[in-house]
Amino acid sequence: MDLISIRDLTKENVKEILDLADGIADGKKKIDLKGRIAATLFFEPSTRTKLSFQSAAMRCGMTYLDFLPELSSLKKGESFADTIKTVEGYADVLVVRHAKEGSARLAADMTAKPVVNGGDGGNQHPTQTLIDLFSIRRMKGKIDGLNVTLLGDLKHARTMRSLVYGLAMFDANVTLISPKGLEMDPIYLKEVEKKFGLKVKLKGEPEFRDADVLYVCRIQAERFADPYEAQSIMKKFRVKKEDLDGTKKDLAILHPLPKINEIDPEIDKMPQARYFEQAHYGVPLRMAIIDYVLRKG
Amino acid sequence: MDLISIRDLTKENVKEILDLADGIADGKKKIDLKGRIAATLFFEPSTRTKLSFQSAAMRCGMTYLDFLPELSSLKKGESFADTIKTVEGYADVLVVRHAKEGSARLAADMTAKPVVNGGDGGNQHPTQTLIDLFSIRRMKGKIDGLNVTLLGDLKHARTMRSLVYGLAMFDANVTLISPKGLEMDPIYLKEVEKKFGLKVKLKGEPEFRDADVLYVCRIQAERFADPYEAQSIMKKFRVKKEDLDGTKKDLAILHPLPKINEIDPEIDKMPQARYFEQAHYGVPLRMAIIDYVLRKG
Amino acid sequence: MDLISIRDLTKENVKEILDLADGIADGKKKIDLKGRIAATLFFEPSTRTKLSFQSAAMRCGMTYLDFLPELSSLKKGESFADTIKTVEGYADVLVVRHAKEGSARLAADMTAKPVVNGGDGGNQHPTQTLIDLFSIRRMKGKIDGLNVTLLGDLKHARTMRSLVYGLAMFDANVTLISPKGLEMDPIYLKEVEKKFGLKVKLKGEPEFRDADVLYVCRIQAERFADPYEAQSIMKKFRVKKEDLDGTKKDLAILHPLPKINEIDPEIDKMPQARYFEQAHYGVPLRMAIIDYVLRKG
Repeated sequence: MDLISIRDLTKENVKEILDLADGIADGKKKIDLKGRIAATLFFEPSTRTKLSFQSAAMRCGMTYLDFLPELSSLKKGESFADTIKTVEGYADVLVVRHAKEGSARLAADMTAKPVVNGGDGGNQHPTQTLIDLFSIRRMKGKIDGLNVTLLGDLKHARTMRSLVYGLAMFDANVTLISPKGLEMDPIYLKEVEKKFGLKVKLKGEPEFRDADVLYVCRIQAERFADPYEAQSIMKKFRVKKEDLDGTKKDLAILHPLPKINEIDPEIDKMPQARYFEQAHYGVPLRMAIIDYVLRKG
Repeated sequence: MDLISIRDLTKENVKEILDLADGIADGKKKIDLKGRIAATLFFEPSTRTKLSFQSAAMRCGMTYLDFLPELSSLKKGESFADTIKTVEGYADVLVVRHAKEGSARLAADMTAKPVVNGGDGGNQHPTQTLIDLFSIRRMKGKIDGLNVTLLGDLKHARTMRSLVYGLAMFDANVTLISPKGLEMDPIYLKEVEKKFGLKVKLKGEPEFRDADVLYVCRIQAERFADPYEAQSIMKKFRVKKEDLDGTKKDLAILHPLPKINEIDPEIDKMPQARYFEQAHYGVPLRMAIIDYVLRKG
Repeated sequence: MDLISIRDLTKENVKEILDLADGIADGKKKIDLKGRIAATLFFEPSTRTKLSFQSAAMRCGMTYLDFLPELSSLKKGESFADTIKTVEGYADVLVVRHAKEGSARLAADMTAKPVVNGGDGGNQHPTQTLIDLFSIRRMKGKIDGLNVTLLGDLKHARTMRSLVYGLAMFDANVTLISPKGLEMDPIYLKEVEKKFGLKVKLKGEPEFRDADVLYVCRIQAERFADPYEAQSIMKKFRVKKEDLDGTKKDLAILHPLPKINEIDPEIDKMPQARYFEQAHYGVPLRMAIIDYVLRKG
């Protein structure tokens, strides 16, 4: 099977993947896919997604092929579809990242081999959403009933829409905090209300005293016409040590990384900072995904 | 042993390699080269050759080292010879692609380790020729007596000269179709006539009704001084759906890939289109080559 | 443990590593680290260090992750520290090369996983020093009492300061030959005199008749304001065939490579030229280092 969007999975599917990842992370479940090859086709720069997929493949006993577009026949003008139809002959599962929305779905249509979407532009990044859900469940023991606050530019952040969908699936209480003009498109809020009955709370101020989980994402200066406004808004929405006063003791701060300056580096050393732990969960979770898509065929 | 040119191999050698690749492709023959390392040194961009060699190495139970010239000491001015003499210490077999003709032979002279030529400029690309012969034999059950038509810019296409040599070795009937000015250098035709008694047929028009195999290769607009002429010739020599009217039912269309627009994408879905299958044969064939050169020492 | 500087190791530590590398090179000692992953993080171009670490990892039965900064989130502005804290989750040992002095130490501070310094700017390159000591001991049977002459730009050559330290540790007789203005900083000579009682000999002329080992390193034209002076000095310090007249019969010429034109290519084929052998010792030596730092935890 392919994993292109979190919407391809039922709650039961997600649970199965998270449980498998739990077993792997706890050392109770061994994955042995010796002899299989994963191809990583990253048409956009990546650290975490690519390396953790490659690490996951190796931890499963597999090897990987790293397709490097910069050093390939793409320079000669080969189409994306032709590249996929060629590489499918060299590997057993394909992990694809591409700037264009819909490209992962296109890749999946081109080959009978399992395709995993490693992020297609501003569209879907389902393995990130699964890592986020997995991290929250590992850290808090559950997802349902938790207060999860998402903070930052929710208009452009690829992973946040899918995350709201995943959180709604598991009955979390979701609050969105964005600067004016950078709110999440209401279409995604209507979707989760209709599908899962979740009423998302919206705020314009960085206040998260009732949050169990604070999920921070980037605000890019380029999004603002006025550089002064950009600076003042980024300063206001930057998470600083003093912002943690009065918040829950066991607050977990997450971030999809890379972070630039939206979280004060002072916070890195505080127990609330859980984003590197979250990044490391990429390995057991992606091992579970590789095993899952290969098993489902 | 090294594999630098198809001319290094006798017909018996080629048969041995094709038979081995058959056994691998059919799952009857297992190659176990665990613990061995293949180094891929590609000084020019490549998708198929490099990835299929790496995939082949892993399918043989080996691992690979990917030397990336862009990120290496070459920037500091190291000679090609010194690079080869260094890397030979890190691997058991070296696959080399380089823009300069003769560079693979030079590499072979520098090291006692087996060197496989992954393409040296406009000169030799023996593993592509072997894949072409293997594909034809797999698809048609034989090579001798087949009508094989090569179409496109046969003046500049690196792989076509070696292919004519290989086809002549196996007693195929070869027809060459090229636009005026892009014909294959007669020296190669004289060679196969003298060595194998093959009289190659020549045509200036894209007509291939009697072909069992149509092998298409690129025509690059840059080869023409007059852009209008370039467009009209490329249009004429482009293989379109209607060109297949009246051709043999079981015609197999091959292409070394990447293709740009010399074959109409509509043809991709037709049963005659066999070029992706051909690309995939790169894996069993290159497994056979790796095994062969390592066994011959 | 981490390996950041040769100064982190006692003479006993170095001996243990060299003995282990001897056992590996002789085929008497097998290293089996199956299932472990080495991450190579090279923020600067490299051929030998990176490829030989990757080869060494595979010869130990491990696999490797190749972090390619050019194709990573660094482009998005991620800090070096954040990159290290992320990648530590994907591998068991990290090999880091970075242009900035102190960066390997910083990396080691960021992670509990073993970090090996693959060269940090003009500062430390301890695995090169260990290869140099290993090469001398393999070639000559010992280090103590040998006449080892270092020739070239000893002011800027990263590896030479550490090599003097390592040679002093093993009681070699060290002579330094440099053009005027490119002498090694006296601080390093005072250090070895104080620590090991070694009095280094200094010369301004390329004369090495009493040397058992001649270690050559680069002189870069850019170091001189006057291009005519640069040319005349580089010519004078270039090692030519006739310079070997009157030298010891079993003189071993070493070089950290890549070499440009500081050694006449004619010398490459002479028995005195041992630099490619030296480069190849990178594999057993780095296998020993990987095993050593993983065992020490």
